[in-house]
Amino acid sequence: MGKIHTPHGTIDTPAFMPVGTQATVKALTPEDLLSCGVQVILGNTYHLYLRPGHEIIQNLGGLHRFMNWNGPILTDSGGFQIFSLNKLARVTEEGATFQSHLDGSSHFFTPEKAIEVQTSLGSDIIMPLDEPLAYPATWAEAEASLKLSTRWALRCREAHRSPSQALFGIVQGGMFKDLREQSAEQIVALDFPGYAIGGLSVGEDIELMREMARHTALLLPENKPRYLMGVGTPADLLAGSGMGIDMFDCVMPTRNARNGTLFTAKGKINIRNARFKTDPNPVDPNCDCYTCRNFSLAYLRHLFLADEILSMHLNTLHNIAFYQRWMKNIRDTIRADRPFDLAWTDDPAVTPGHPEFP
Amino acid sequence: MGKIHTPHGTIDTPAFMPVGTQATVKALTPEDLLSCGVQVILGNTYHLYLRPGHEIIQNLGGLHRFMNWNGPILTDSGGFQIFSLNKLARVTEEGATFQSHLDGSSHFFTPEKAIEVQTSLGSDIIMPLDEPLAYPATWAEAEASLKLSTRWALRCREAHRSPSQALFGIVQGGMFKDLREQSAEQIVALDFPGYAIGGLSVGEDIELMREMARHTALLLPENKPRYLMGVGTPADLLAGSGMGIDMFDCVMPTRNARNGTLFTAKGKINIRNARFKTDPNPVDPNCDCYTCRNFSLAYLRHLFLADEILSMHLNTLHNIAFYQRWMKNIRDTIRADRPFDLAWTDDPAVTPGHPEFP
Repeated sequence: MGKIHTPHGTIDTPAFMPVGTQATVKALTPEDLLSCGVQVILGNTYHLYLRPGHEIIQNLGGLHRFMNWNGPILTDSGGFQIFSLNKLARVTEEGATFQSHLDGSSHFFTPEKAIEVQTSLGSDIIMPLDEPLAYPATWAEAEASLKLSTRWALRCREAHRSPSQALFGIVQGGMFKDLREQSAEQIVALDFPGYAIGGLSVGEDIELMREMARHTALLLPENKPRYLMGVGTPADLLAGSGMGIDMFDCVMPTRNARNGTLFTAKGKINIRNARFKTDPNPVDPNCDCYTCRNFSLAYLRHLFLADEILSMHLNTLHNIAFYQRWMKNIRDTIRADRPFDLAWTDDPAVTPGHPEFP
Repeated sequence: MGKIHTPHGTIDTPAFMPVGTQATVKALTPEDLLSCGVQVILGNTYHLYLRPGHEIIQNLGGLHRFMNWNGPILTDSGGFQIFSLNKLARVTEEGATFQSHLDGSSHFFTPEKAIEVQTSLGSDIIMPLDEPLAYPATWAEAEASLKLSTRWALRCREAHRSPSQALFGIVQGGMFKDLREQSAEQIVALDFPGYAIGGLSVGEDIELMREMARHTALLLPENKPRYLMGVGTPADLLAGSGMGIDMFDCVMPTRNARNGTLFTAKGKINIRNARFKTDPNPVDPNCDCYTCRNFSLAYLRHLFLADEILSMHLNTLHNIAFYQRWMKNIRDTIRADRPFDLAWTDDPAVTPGHPEFP
């Protein structure tokens, strides 16, 4: 546990970063985020580059001012979306060619371009362009990919000029422990102020994900932030915190909210369920979010079935508040040097496994 | 100008009531409504009867508690939606038969049923079932319709038992002044605590609407609230206030917001417009709403084009704040006994005519 200092404020770790893909955490205002205790959000470089365009955002004073979020922002490099949203993306040593998912226009992203775009956005923590590895992949594919990512990381470090932005390194290596070691050695040698564990939560079994995360986390310097990208469930955050991970991001709380799935201390519920039809209770009686203080399960079910915009707002507000409280409980537990005893009685069919710690 | 006292608080008049069809003013929380200065909202009986059902709402403590809006609520009778959403609705002396627009199920609404449902909802002001007249209609059609509505109004008054709910009367009569007089005479004779002007803003020319509204308003008691149903533009509210109208409702500010149309002191704008692409200014520099205090036109345009939920929230918040401030300006003008001098430079192609007063 610790603190990460940025030009836009301090982040208490371990921290969960809600995803704000298009310069908004979907369905929430910046004020809502603050009310949930959010300290840092993630922005997606790929989306902002395509729309409205990083130059427009830069001319309007940067991403913080554009979206009126004055806390820390981490942006990804765009690499993950280039490949996940563009099945025809092609990679060369120089960079990646892809078509916009919006209008089909052609674009070429290089490591230097990823840094340029993130510099325009003005985010506090920026990420180097890397090549996401398909899953499953062979050892040879994974090795070639991590080596390319290392060369790109070096180019990113050389292109990086902005002293107010911290460029992290990303460890790849697929699902192979020896390749994770190889990647970690190369990336740590480049001496970044923080390190991300990439390429996990891409379709593999949850036990494998945690095993690779734990193995990789142990390879990273103890005095620098460790960021597990794209993870995860509350149980994953608990497990990851036990491994010494400092930062997480995931669309789960926001996307689930829009699908009617809400997190509670007793596990996930789906608000569509007929058993909530007349239920006057809040989603979680121990939750102090605006949604739980003011609305019943029956009302939230009604809003969802009626396809009301307010449904997405209230559900998202609750899930983000849940995630933030979850992280605060983890931090308090670490600070008090207590054993982890936070119960997470999720449906094992949906979130396999239970909290585990090394 | 005056005040309407209800069990859930006092309404300063003339007042605009945002429409909360399905137990929510679309895209806003009750807290948002309060931040805009909203004092009273309208609920739609037809929608709530079908989903989630008035009995569920009653069992959960009534509509106020269900949606957590503790201010006054006016509900309509359901009549307008029965006919506008069900082209095959059939009317007899007894009531109206219609199919649910949700699942096609058959329903029969009578004047007594409309009162029963609204009693279950617990709204502060309730409306009698009446038969909306098609536009255009002949004199004979309009006369037959207003007479049926009078008979139904009498049945509603007899069915009305709840002392905490004020049942208003509705004056019909189509676009015929003599029939408006006939209807007003019959409805006023039934001695309701307030009177609505129904059957306007149904497709007729704006000048005709205002002429009929003015003619009807003059037929109603001065010491009771006058409510012009389903109206209208800011210019209409200004004109109507000049006629002595106390209450208005319209989906315009909320629906327009979701379509990207925003109200400003200089007229309406559409946020999609390319001229806002890089505009750092707020929608309206004189507006103190959350949207205008925190976000640029460029950001709002981006959110709209990116189809973000936050777009609908921020746009709606602004339009409702605009409407409420507009009404406050009208009340202040009346209180100060000043001539109406509020400029409304709307696009005449969209909102024909300019403020006019008798």
